[in-house]
Amino acid sequence: MARWLVILAGGRGERFWPLSRMMHPKQFLSLVGSESMLRTTRDRMRPLIDDGHTWVVTGCDYVGKVKENLPTLPVDQILGEPVGRNTAPSIAWAASSIAQIDPEGVMVVLPSDHMIQHIDKFRQLVSEAMEQAQERGGFYTFGIVPNHPETGYGYIEQDGAGPNFHVQRVARFVEKPPLEQAEAMVQSGRYYWNSGMFVFPVMEFLEAVDTHLPDLSQGIQAIRQDPRSLDRVFPELPQVSVDHGILEKVASMFVLRADIGWDDVGTFAALARLLPRNDEMNAARGHAVFVDSENVTAISDGPVVSCIGVKDLVVVATHDAVLILSPGRAQDVRQVVQALKEGRHEHLL
Amino acid sequence: MARWLVILAGGRGERFWPLSRMMHPKQFLSLVGSESMLRTTRDRMRPLIDDGHTWVVTGCDYVGKVKENLPTLPVDQILGEPVGRNTAPSIAWAASSIAQIDPEGVMVVLPSDHMIQHIDKFRQLVSEAMEQAQERGGFYTFGIVPNHPETGYGYIEQDGAGPNFHVQRVARFVEKPPLEQAEAMVQSGRYYWNSGMFVFPVMEFLEAVDTHLPDLSQGIQAIRQDPRSLDRVFPELPQVSVDHGILEKVASMFVLRADIGWDDVGTFAALARLLPRNDEMNAARGHAVFVDSENVTAISDGPVVSCIGVKDLVVVATHDAVLILSPGRAQDVRQVVQALKEGRHEHLL
Repeated sequence: MARWLVILAGGRGERFWPLSRMMHPKQFLSLVGSESMLRTTRDRMRPLIDDGHTWVVTGCDYVGKVKENLPTLPVDQILGEPVGRNTAPSIAWAASSIAQIDPEGVMVVLPSDHMIQHIDKFRQLVSEAMEQAQERGGFYTFGIVPNHPETGYGYIEQDGAGPNFHVQRVARFVEKPPLEQAEAMVQSGRYYWNSGMFVFPVMEFLEAVDTHLPDLSQGIQAIRQDPRSLDRVFPELPQVSVDHGILEKVASMFVLRADIGWDDVGTFAALARLLPRNDEMNAARGHAVFVDSENVTAISDGPVVSCIGVKDLVVVATHDAVLILSPGRAQDVRQVVQALKEGRHEHLL
Repeated sequence: MARWLVILAGGRGERFWPLSRMMHPKQFLSLVGSESMLRTTRDRMRPLIDDGHTWVVTGCDYVGKVKENLPTLPVDQILGEPVGRNTAPSIAWAASSIAQIDPEGVMVVLPSDHMIQHIDKFRQLVSEAMEQAQERGGFYTFGIVPNHPETGYGYIEQDGAGPNFHVQRVARFVEKPPLEQAEAMVQSGRYYWNSGMFVFPVMEFLEAVDTHLPDLSQGIQAIRQDPRSLDRVFPELPQVSVDHGILEKVASMFVLRADIGWDDVGTFAALARLLPRNDEMNAARGHAVFVDSENVTAISDGPVVSCIGVKDLVVVATHDAVLILSPGRAQDVRQVVQALKEGRHEHLL
């Protein structure tokens, strides 16, 4: 009846090109702090859960990278997916693997590329959710109090009928809403951002998969019975998120109010917001020189970035690619990635 | 009584950092066209003057670079100055070297880093100036018809008493004027930009040096008598431009109206003006991707430059340094160079 950690590290992170590359996506970057996002995610949970109880699900191309980042993690606890099929298959595969060892276990699922500032508070919440999951079962998520009407996130509505003031029953999930709806939800005070972090008993989750996604359940069982079938079976699994495929459908879904300084660091603009600024509102990660410039964020993994008489820019520099964008356009980095693909410049991706 | 070419290639070109570096200044860059500015300068004159009659004056650190750029030039015709002392010492040293071989010669002096679009016209003007210099002596310069009140150039006033309509006697030189004066001069129609290109008989020039800069004359003679004295004598020579030290003082100074598509390509802004633009007024030298961007000039010697939602920028990218500037601030690149010096980042210069 142990506690288990599952880290989802399969992302491609195209919105962080050119810092991230196809073979070096966001979870392996040190965007915030000195360690990779993946390693920071693991280290954050270490006082609660040791390496022996930690699993990482990633793309098969990234298994080596995960080993490098987490050299003390037993290698058979790194699950390499032949293709990405969204989070439901990833978590089901990990849960099924854990269930072989500890069917009574409780697991916490964490994305590998989020930032959390109030770590002690976060650990306390995870402990609490895991205790409750052990005692009374059910599914738990961590709800971030929204501070702006973000349209790129999912939202969670609480119904106010939870066991105590900060653990509430979930009324419903709302996928990335249009701006007007997002504004109304933020104003109502009844909605949280869906952080994508979850806690539940391993067997209760696998039973829910069996109920709500029987194809997925059968596929995972087939892979378990014959691991050599992975490359054939995995690509056929239903491509669906755990929220949409499972959690929206279970009866006992709870949300813990999580005031933990969370940020998914989803774009360069988000990263820019997290960096300390000087008097002219310039910020640098890496070596930068600012002359008469204002509100410029320079992010470099090597080249010195110099700015003269410019403002309101995010500049990202590597030895072979430079990106300059208006902070409001950080979501559109994929357009450049697409253009480079179409121009047959895949070596830059 | 041959024709001789002297190319001045001693510049440091800090305004082109980071494309130019201390060991790779502007004259060795291919800013326009596919060859270095130096090689383009030599090639432009080749139908008139062969390598056997071409001299290059440069910094002693750049002699190897000149050899690489002009492999067919006899190496003893590359003069390496131990320190830069402005143009009067450079030209006097070259003239003195030529006078040893051909005291009756006529020489044309060209900066190594200017662009000329109408090459045939230019050659015709140089031929004409050299013929006149041979026939009747005198000093000749090429006057560029100004198209804006540039404050960074010198100006030449014609007095309208020249031998024919497009060769005029020079009334006076005006050093970099304040804007108001520049505007008045451009409007008057009597002023040309001083292109820094000159033609004169070798001996007449050396006599003028003897008259107007006797210290320089003696120093050059000392170096000629004992070449080992170069490192000791050269740094003591008067640091003065040929315009100010000699040409402003000679009686028979002429200017040829030169409508030759000239540009000194003095800054990134000047280079930006020379590049072809797309419908959104973006221009690239090197690999660039523009998304919803306008009036952006991307100059790269390697990295791909991508821009999203930005405008009115000049971006310069190399593998170890990136510069982003407002086009109006191109003169201020030296501020960044200075900041890097002060920050002990000389390896980037």
